[in-house]
Amino acid sequence: MIYFDNAATTKPSANALSKAAVYLTEQYFNPSAMYREGFELHKKLKETREKLLSFVADPSLFELIFTSCGTESDNTAIFSSARRGNAVTTQGEHAAVQNSFSELKMRGIETRFASLKRDGSVDEEHLLSLVDEKTSLVSIIHVNNETGAINDVNAIAKKVKVKNPRAIVHVDGVQAFGKLPYRLSKDVDFYALSAHKIGGVKGTGALIKKKSLHLNPYLIGGGQENGLRSGTENLFGIQTLFFAAEEKYQDRERKYREMTEKKAILLSRLSDQFVPIANGSPYIASFAVKGVRGEILLHKVNDLGLIIGTGSACSSNAKKRYSRVILSCGYDEKAADGVIRLSFTDDTTAEEMEQAADILREQAEILKEELK
Amino acid sequence: MIYFDNAATTKPSANALSKAAVYLTEQYFNPSAMYREGFELHKKLKETREKLLSFVADPSLFELIFTSCGTESDNTAIFSSARRGNAVTTQGEHAAVQNSFSELKMRGIETRFASLKRDGSVDEEHLLSLVDEKTSLVSIIHVNNETGAINDVNAIAKKVKVKNPRAIVHVDGVQAFGKLPYRLSKDVDFYALSAHKIGGVKGTGALIKKKSLHLNPYLIGGGQENGLRSGTENLFGIQTLFFAAEEKYQDRERKYREMTEKKAILLSRLSDQFVPIANGSPYIASFAVKGVRGEILLHKVNDLGLIIGTGSACSSNAKKRYSRVILSCGYDEKAADGVIRLSFTDDTTAEEMEQAADILREQAEILKEELK
Repeated sequence: MIYFDNAATTKPSANALSKAAVYLTEQYFNPSAMYREGFELHKKLKETREKLLSFVADPSLFELIFTSCGTESDNTAIFSSARRGNAVTTQGEHAAVQNSFSELKMRGIETRFASLKRDGSVDEEHLLSLVDEKTSLVSIIHVNNETGAINDVNAIAKKVKVKNPRAIVHVDGVQAFGKLPYRLSKDVDFYALSAHKIGGVKGTGALIKKKSLHLNPYLIGGGQENGLRSGTENLFGIQTLFFAAEEKYQDRERKYREMTEKKAILLSRLSDQFVPIANGSPYIASFAVKGVRGEILLHKVNDLGLIIGTGSACSSNAKKRYSRVILSCGYDEKAADGVIRLSFTDDTTAEEMEQAADILREQAEILKEELK
Repeated sequence: MIYFDNAATTKPSANALSKAAVYLTEQYFNPSAMYREGFELHKKLKETREKLLSFVADPSLFELIFTSCGTESDNTAIFSSARRGNAVTTQGEHAAVQNSFSELKMRGIETRFASLKRDGSVDEEHLLSLVDEKTSLVSIIHVNNETGAINDVNAIAKKVKVKNPRAIVHVDGVQAFGKLPYRLSKDVDFYALSAHKIGGVKGTGALIKKKSLHLNPYLIGGGQENGLRSGTENLFGIQTLFFAAEEKYQDRERKYREMTEKKAILLSRLSDQFVPIANGSPYIASFAVKGVRGEILLHKVNDLGLIIGTGSACSSNAKKRYSRVILSCGYDEKAADGVIRLSFTDDTTAEEMEQAADILREQAEILKEELK
């Protein structure tokens, strides 16, 4: 089996699972408890929080709150920040942001959407033109989950702050964390990430926030996470996230370079029936495949042991045939119908790239002939 | 070590962990994905949902939504339901409900709190007197987490509906699920539960809801859980919850009886320095210990290998010396200062009860002498 749907979810790292297993079997205590065993876990939690944060941000400027998933992180940042005026985002957001903006609109906040360029990244000029003195929130995806398009979030955040220093900048970093080499600049206020996209387990995410910023908690209760996110702390999920991230951030730049080279092997071996969408993250390769339906190609190659996606797994729940993100890039419905997404991890090998390319090329050719 | 803080969190069931481990190591796919491996997990999720629900409710009347914790379940039910008029609850609620009511008040909803009886259960007459035609929500805890007091939620829900059939009844069932033998009546609209209180893992909860009822989703995004709770489904956590619940619901009545007998052993062996609070769930024994501070007794017995609580682990985050629930039962601050909570699982043995009673009796006596 070749698993090329790592943007939907990853196989948890065996190494991270094995290191974190003790938090399921022996260190299961409640970190809020007052006895020694609980307090030890409280200390471990604090230490893990700092170390995880330091992979991408300066712990003197930022803090990190553990959540249950990327969606909760996005919801927390958005509903805390957009309480008046208007909120600006892009047409290339994950459903966790896109649908939160629909909710904002229902609550009386004016929502504004910046258009995308053909390569899937946001049209910066358009986005900046939407920001004014009444903008309370600007939410930008770092790496688009369907196309892999990268937005230069530090640069955009800086320009947003020039136009309106009070606008809060939230970044959905779910497909960037553990993959792109970057550090958050002081212009970014919130940054959402998810464990299960980088070898952690489902049910854990985090929200990085500027220390100086006020947050209205989204989950309300016992006051865990310094009062910012209630619910008993999931130390197993948190430790698995940390150990998985630790692996990812070892030689991040080298791994990123190698991934770029491996992706090039795939691209070079595909026929011109495969039209690449975006040229962004090396961890995602998205194509509009001419003359086929993406979903049918997905099932064909599935039978041959190759697992791929057709965009966001999340959007399959909405049962929409065409991806709104792909259409926003300027593709017509016919092209959008043929879109497939391949997504990788550092463990993906050159051989897998070659085999997958061969399977895809052959099956797409057969399908195209059948449909003629 | 004797672990008597099972109301704070439980050691995950080794059996449940071992059965669910495959969802970490091999069946890690995204249940929303379109390929076969994803769809198989989608089916498994559906099947698990029905089976879990059937332990306490009629699947033709109710449905079940997986969440990240009891707090999220409570928040979801409360903020979806209390959108106008007034909302009624008790003075004996967990912080997840209590603090959500503070938030409701800030949003302009009138909040009303029914008083508690000396045994920790709600004063039903008072509660019913607070319900009127403008009541949108009534939220009641099933088993109080600090005292173990049991509220007859089916009976209360029935009376609430007589006074106002449109009032939505939410029950926080976190300390009842998997412990008390009960079935939900049709008068209950929402029911919250948590995995890690019954041998599941942290990071998983569920909200049971009447099928006929509209729910405004709390986590907004990809539309998982039939659009009612977004975020990639945490199948490992969900399966662990199911396997743990399956164990708990095997011979539930017998286990409940046996727990009652085991708790009696503890009570019979303690001195009259230990004044029992409530006579509710056999899984919780709460005492106002005369002449000692609960926190100091907790640390003393901790050194001897006995782990106990002093009320809600969650409330320790609030750094409040006296429990508001204990004070609401009519105890003064001096008595509240001496409160300890012991909480058990079906695995708790008679021998552990005897040993714990001896340690507690002796240490409380020593402390009392020291403080004289």
